[in-house]
Amino acid sequence: MRVTGVVVEYNPMHNGHLYHLEQAKLVTDADAIVAVMSGHFLQRGEPALVNKWARTKMALQQGVDLVLELPVAYSAQSASLFALGSVAVLDRLGVVDTVCFGSESGDIHSLQALSSILVEEPPLFKTFLREELQKGHSYPRAASDALARYASQDTAIPSELAHMPNNMLGLEYLAALRKLNSSIAPATITRIAAGYNQETVTHPSIASATAIRKATFETGIDTAENLLPVCSFSVLQEEFAAGRGPVSWENYRQALFTLLHRATPDALAAFVGVDEGLEHRLLEAALQTETVHELILHTKTKRYTWTKIQRALTSILLGLTRQEQAALNVLQGPPYIRVLGFTKRGQTLLKAASSRASVPILTKLPKEKPNMLALDLRATRLYAQGYPTHQQGAELWDITRPVLIQN
Amino acid sequence: MRVTGVVVEYNPMHNGHLYHLEQAKLVTDADAIVAVMSGHFLQRGEPALVNKWARTKMALQQGVDLVLELPVAYSAQSASLFALGSVAVLDRLGVVDTVCFGSESGDIHSLQALSSILVEEPPLFKTFLREELQKGHSYPRAASDALARYASQDTAIPSELAHMPNNMLGLEYLAALRKLNSSIAPATITRIAAGYNQETVTHPSIASATAIRKATFETGIDTAENLLPVCSFSVLQEEFAAGRGPVSWENYRQALFTLLHRATPDALAAFVGVDEGLEHRLLEAALQTETVHELILHTKTKRYTWTKIQRALTSILLGLTRQEQAALNVLQGPPYIRVLGFTKRGQTLLKAASSRASVPILTKLPKEKPNMLALDLRATRLYAQGYPTHQQGAELWDITRPVLIQN
Repeated sequence: MRVTGVVVEYNPMHNGHLYHLEQAKLVTDADAIVAVMSGHFLQRGEPALVNKWARTKMALQQGVDLVLELPVAYSAQSASLFALGSVAVLDRLGVVDTVCFGSESGDIHSLQALSSILVEEPPLFKTFLREELQKGHSYPRAASDALARYASQDTAIPSELAHMPNNMLGLEYLAALRKLNSSIAPATITRIAAGYNQETVTHPSIASATAIRKATFETGIDTAENLLPVCSFSVLQEEFAAGRGPVSWENYRQALFTLLHRATPDALAAFVGVDEGLEHRLLEAALQTETVHELILHTKTKRYTWTKIQRALTSILLGLTRQEQAALNVLQGPPYIRVLGFTKRGQTLLKAASSRASVPILTKLPKEKPNMLALDLRATRLYAQGYPTHQQGAELWDITRPVLIQN
Repeated sequence: MRVTGVVVEYNPMHNGHLYHLEQAKLVTDADAIVAVMSGHFLQRGEPALVNKWARTKMALQQGVDLVLELPVAYSAQSASLFALGSVAVLDRLGVVDTVCFGSESGDIHSLQALSSILVEEPPLFKTFLREELQKGHSYPRAASDALARYASQDTAIPSELAHMPNNMLGLEYLAALRKLNSSIAPATITRIAAGYNQETVTHPSIASATAIRKATFETGIDTAENLLPVCSFSVLQEEFAAGRGPVSWENYRQALFTLLHRATPDALAAFVGVDEGLEHRLLEAALQTETVHELILHTKTKRYTWTKIQRALTSILLGLTRQEQAALNVLQGPPYIRVLGFTKRGQTLLKAASSRASVPILTKLPKEKPNMLALDLRATRLYAQGYPTHQQGAELWDITRPVLIQN
């Protein structure tokens, strides 16, 4: 059985994701698809629109055979850590042949060449990176610009590659495969129709998840109906009707402002991602703003990007300090694989994986929880505070909900 | 000018308080009244129904000449600390002749005798106290019972005195006067009509503040109209109409549950008042309850009283740790006197006090703030998170609002 892995957030799963899945199956000649999916807090530092169980349901009903959870210790972190955690989960499962990701270029060889630069950091690249950082740019922007400058000297690489929005994540997947010395082969397919973060809808049935969420919040879920597969649409309708969504940062207003107003700058600076003086800007902004959107807008600078600020808010909400993070040994990859759901084919896959995985595969939670798993449980308890209607028992769903089985 | 001090919360100021003020003036032959008033968090561990400026307005319009703020380091603490802070503020002002408080007995000599037992702790009293604590009672209950047992052996003291609900606070005022070696004379007047915490309304125009708040939350402010002086009623109407009240613990639901769900037992046990295993009960209760009322109810035992739990929640919300409290040196009394408002007579009083006060009198806030004052500012920022409608700039009202002057 040829098994292909994908890294997803499905926030929510839309027509573009369906296209990507079909292409991934075709290109890699896959018999089964394993998705590693962010839980309740996502790569751009946001709480998910609906919870991970609802998003798992979308995935299993629409072409994924096995959904594994990316621990929050990776999911709301930098592209590099996010990619490392995701690829590590796929690698440790022991049965994945190929990892397939979307990119603007669709050219895996050029991406490999660029990724090597990121991993090897030749002196000239480091010089460029330092220069770009000195301009006051954020790290991801500086790295991307330095890479483009370096690549432009290498005739083997089309320099515009490094500037395409989602390529950095693709490069990080490739870098992670190398760091982990993984035997998984990389593959890429060309994205279509909508850029990763594009906010407006330009294609009749394919739009970015960002555009879909925007439409959902501004004009209601019904206006996004033709951008969503039937199953995603009905799962969202069901979740919203039950008061379990839509969830956004605004739903955590009191929690966030309370945490900011009671913190000293030093206490705030202890959280992951609150650095370079961000603590002072956040505290000042909290005194002058009313909504979380305004808070972020007021804090934002060239160096503190929207994403960096949102990730910092995630750390603050979760109470994730640098000290706690250090004890998690994130660079070694997750010490377990958490299963969120599977199909019949996924079950066969799990059976095969049971003898080949290099870490325990959890279909139910052990009594003694690794610290990284305990953090995921905390994330669920805190995510539950943002449901539009309080859901009795939702803080314990990690423990009380069985793994989703899709027949 | 004969000056009488009173210790108040005015949550809200009602007909019973008016009666008490008039009696206090009569009994002590007072020319002016100084009130030391709790700020945003009160002795029973609750956020105030309306903010301290609204409550200052009620006081100044209805017979008080000068309102001083009891720092939150004292206001949401045990009866003993609450009394010490209050009496210290009055003592340090340098112009107060008498402190007058309500009691069920109205007999200052018996109260003095009982208070001496609390201060001197004779061996037999200590034995009784230990025995009562071993029964699993809370400290205040055990102290009250031990006192009653001890007093019953002293024919000079009617033993039922120590069992009357508000007497412990009165005894603590007397104890504080002794501890501070204050020259202020104590006086007491008999309470009428409604017990301190009585929840039901039994007198046509006098009810406890507890009963008035209950009526306000359950059936609206209008049903409490005949229990309130005209001025209090109109201040409350104004505050509620502007979305600044009514404030209760339920208004802090997300903040409190978030703080509980992200805390470890050890982190929770660092807060003032979270001891004797209360941290475990709180964490467990948070997983099984939906409202703050249910949270407290679920946590409550014979030892953890409603009041103790509410005070612990105040510490948790404010982020007040035992370590921070220790650095405040609360037993030495507040290092400043904060003025919330005054009448013309109050202004004269302030002028007299300016040369006699033993600590700085603050009518506006200094740039360098004592830690105890910084904690009050934090309390205001956090209290502001519970307004029914978010009030722009309310987090900074301590700094931006001038002292209230009532002509």
